[in-house]
Amino acid sequence: MSIEQRFMDYVKKMSAYNEALSVLYWDMRTGAPKKGLDRRSETVGVLSGELYRMSTSNELDQMLTQLEEQRDELSPLISKTVEVERKNYNLNSKIPEKEYEEYVVLLSKAESVWEEAKEKSDFAMFAPYLERIVETDKRFIEYWGIKDGNPYNTLLDQYEPGMTTEILDEVFADLRSKIVPLVKQIAESANKPDTDFLAKKFAKDQQEKFSHELLKQLGYDFDAGRLDETVHPFQITLNRGDVRITTKYDENDFRSAIFGTIHECGHALYEQNVSEELDGTPLSTGTSMGIHESQSLFYENFIGRNENFWIHNYHLLQQHSPEQFGNVELGDFIRAINESKPSLIRIDADELTYPLHIMIRYEIEKGLFNGNLQVADLPQIWNDKYEEYLGIRPESDGEGVLQDVHWSSGLFGYFPSYALGFLYAAQLKAAMLKDIPNFDDLCRSGDFAPILSWLTEKVHRHGKMKEPLEILQEATGEGLNAEHLVNHLRSKYEKVYQLN
Amino acid sequence: MSIEQRFMDYVKKMSAYNEALSVLYWDMRTGAPKKGLDRRSETVGVLSGELYRMSTSNELDQMLTQLEEQRDELSPLISKTVEVERKNYNLNSKIPEKEYEEYVVLLSKAESVWEEAKEKSDFAMFAPYLERIVETDKRFIEYWGIKDGNPYNTLLDQYEPGMTTEILDEVFADLRSKIVPLVKQIAESANKPDTDFLAKKFAKDQQEKFSHELLKQLGYDFDAGRLDETVHPFQITLNRGDVRITTKYDENDFRSAIFGTIHECGHALYEQNVSEELDGTPLSTGTSMGIHESQSLFYENFIGRNENFWIHNYHLLQQHSPEQFGNVELGDFIRAINESKPSLIRIDADELTYPLHIMIRYEIEKGLFNGNLQVADLPQIWNDKYEEYLGIRPESDGEGVLQDVHWSSGLFGYFPSYALGFLYAAQLKAAMLKDIPNFDDLCRSGDFAPILSWLTEKVHRHGKMKEPLEILQEATGEGLNAEHLVNHLRSKYEKVYQLN
Repeated sequence: MSIEQRFMDYVKKMSAYNEALSVLYWDMRTGAPKKGLDRRSETVGVLSGELYRMSTSNELDQMLTQLEEQRDELSPLISKTVEVERKNYNLNSKIPEKEYEEYVVLLSKAESVWEEAKEKSDFAMFAPYLERIVETDKRFIEYWGIKDGNPYNTLLDQYEPGMTTEILDEVFADLRSKIVPLVKQIAESANKPDTDFLAKKFAKDQQEKFSHELLKQLGYDFDAGRLDETVHPFQITLNRGDVRITTKYDENDFRSAIFGTIHECGHALYEQNVSEELDGTPLSTGTSMGIHESQSLFYENFIGRNENFWIHNYHLLQQHSPEQFGNVELGDFIRAINESKPSLIRIDADELTYPLHIMIRYEIEKGLFNGNLQVADLPQIWNDKYEEYLGIRPESDGEGVLQDVHWSSGLFGYFPSYALGFLYAAQLKAAMLKDIPNFDDLCRSGDFAPILSWLTEKVHRHGKMKEPLEILQEATGEGLNAEHLVNHLRSKYEKVYQLN
Repeated sequence: MSIEQRFMDYVKKMSAYNEALSVLYWDMRTGAPKKGLDRRSETVGVLSGELYRMSTSNELDQMLTQLEEQRDELSPLISKTVEVERKNYNLNSKIPEKEYEEYVVLLSKAESVWEEAKEKSDFAMFAPYLERIVETDKRFIEYWGIKDGNPYNTLLDQYEPGMTTEILDEVFADLRSKIVPLVKQIAESANKPDTDFLAKKFAKDQQEKFSHELLKQLGYDFDAGRLDETVHPFQITLNRGDVRITTKYDENDFRSAIFGTIHECGHALYEQNVSEELDGTPLSTGTSMGIHESQSLFYENFIGRNENFWIHNYHLLQQHSPEQFGNVELGDFIRAINESKPSLIRIDADELTYPLHIMIRYEIEKGLFNGNLQVADLPQIWNDKYEEYLGIRPESDGEGVLQDVHWSSGLFGYFPSYALGFLYAAQLKAAMLKDIPNFDDLCRSGDFAPILSWLTEKVHRHGKMKEPLEILQEATGEGLNAEHLVNHLRSKYEKVYQLN
């Protein structure tokens, strides 16, 4: 058997373990009975252990080395697979096993301490754990290699290959300088939308039916996926023909399920439309966190909150909850679902203020890894920044610096992806308009196929064959640029709040 | 690490693979999207392959040999685990790999040919495959070792350890001699139950609610399981804390879901109540096919079709389908659900005629492996036996010898378990009555806990620690005995058909 064949069989086997682990995960989130979870964790441990062993084995290292020596003769598919597996190999194998095991124990402890600390709004309780996590990550960064003399870049690159603080600093500064005044203008506007009807009861079974109808309209393939209910919505890929999403039905706030479903649908369309050629390789998935988020936010914000989408769907919505929407005009509905209001909690934030939540986290993370920021200073800095950017100040650390689980899980460098996704989405939308100038007409007539085709052509089909910034450049003709998102936000909120 | 510890860790790891494979299987049956199934099969292949490798490895063989040499010093748990794993090792490793692979290919082909042959009622089409399967199995039996000079015993022992044709011949002859006349008496009875109302519409969501209520009554622990819908009902154990069942809702025949659910509940109660000490070992499951079936049939026939059970539950049933049952007297309902009528299809058969279907298959299998029966003669023999035992003759092989999938899957020696289960159940019921003389009162008041406790004490908790006939002997004080089942069937049908 050729070395190429042997290598591709090896990665295919790893894909099988990944699929099995994904099924186990999905099952645990969608109704696995609680008494089975202890043993289930052991099963997950056994399979993860085997996958880890395979991804760090000498056998893999030797195959990679041999293939790297003949890189010029490899097909693009194999060549890229080698690159991705080498990166993964380095990530996993450069950390001494003992240190990694200690880190896993630390994180497991930290997460439960964080939960209690958040509950009690007691940052001091969590601080020693956070300090040890940051210290450990700093050491790990040295093992991995500091990128461009900048430790935080090493972390950024793990979620968004090619992304650097140099790029982010510039774009975030630009974005912030335009958003902050807009937030103030809105706060001072006298034309606030009426949102009372949003919280009226919308029966769960009707939300479920409506969610199914929307997914079909948007091109989600139910022969290659399914929709289930979970406490926290997510999208998960078992394989290209089995891309599942979940949503949360809140009878007192339909927005959770409807916009959640549309959001996860964007993720799922990405995964369902990766090129068939990449099946069974690590390339058969989205290229990065940020590009993935660009797809979910494209669908959520540029389609799902678009007036024309609702011209097509409002009647249907009214049928599913007639008492709630029967007497609400479409225009009032559009304004209400596009309300913007500074809030303390990131996951409840609207389109406009969301990027500011992200920037605060980004600046703090950068300070911890590149600067002189100390863990002990976090609450003060957090609160000051919220006051500066959003005009509101947390009264406790539970609704402030302790609100997100990410840091207790060692996820540093991850937050920027959320804002990047929105920036990418706005750029893709602007580029798409050149090819599909009748975008709004299509939304108005419920014909989303040309939009999906465009995204598949430019983004989805490539899977991990292209890097994030390569996709952005080829699809839009430029690098990261805040202008398009600023234009979108300005024009939307000027209309919603009648700012002119 | 001690050899015991190393061995128990090894079997625990195999349990983890088994659990993962069970989740994958359950997921494929309960709604995995069809486009993902090709890759899913590959994933199942990778994990099964790893499990097969572990169960036939030299490492395992060496550990077993070493432990067998010090058997007297082992704990009962480890000693029994060694015994079970050795049996499994021999089963898997005595067949030369090449021959086994050819067999797998043959079965895969045979199953699809069988499907078409059944559709077309064309036995000749399937015959060459069946011949090759039987030939191969005969060769495999020689590899495994012929038990008591009797090749078919080797197969029986794989599903029902300790069972032999000597025992079965005697008990089945006894049973048949009592059942056949009863079937004739019923056919001639003028007092047939009215069954028209059974086929009236029973809404699916109401069947589902009623199924949940019954499961709770019977002691099924929903914190350690869940109920889902599939085309063919089944019970599957992921681990002792995650024992799932499925049922099928037929709006035009509620019996499918209600009795199917009660049947699977019996299987599930067995698995949920295996002793905790056996967790993570191959002993943490039912001891045999037959004992398993005794539990499902105990619940289905001795509780679910018991008049007293319905005295407690009939009002509830009426609430769930008032139009169907509102004007039906309880007595008429009981008679209708206990109707007996000879039929050609095993899976549609009632309690009384079911064992006859099994005996026919048993006699044919025995003839193929121990006697002179040729595959080509099967249709003729099949039809003659149906006429002799049940008084009806199939008009085509599709509703005759081709009806069951088992033989195309190489499952010989498996059918007797179904009848054994019923025999065991009747014996257990008779023994239980000595300890719980108020069995009927408990059913009438819906208090099933003492019944479940008795079964757990005598059967469930032992898992595979005891052999089937050991459990039977200890619980009932005797070996296999048809008398108790005959008594049950006679007293039931004399009442339903007013035979006296």
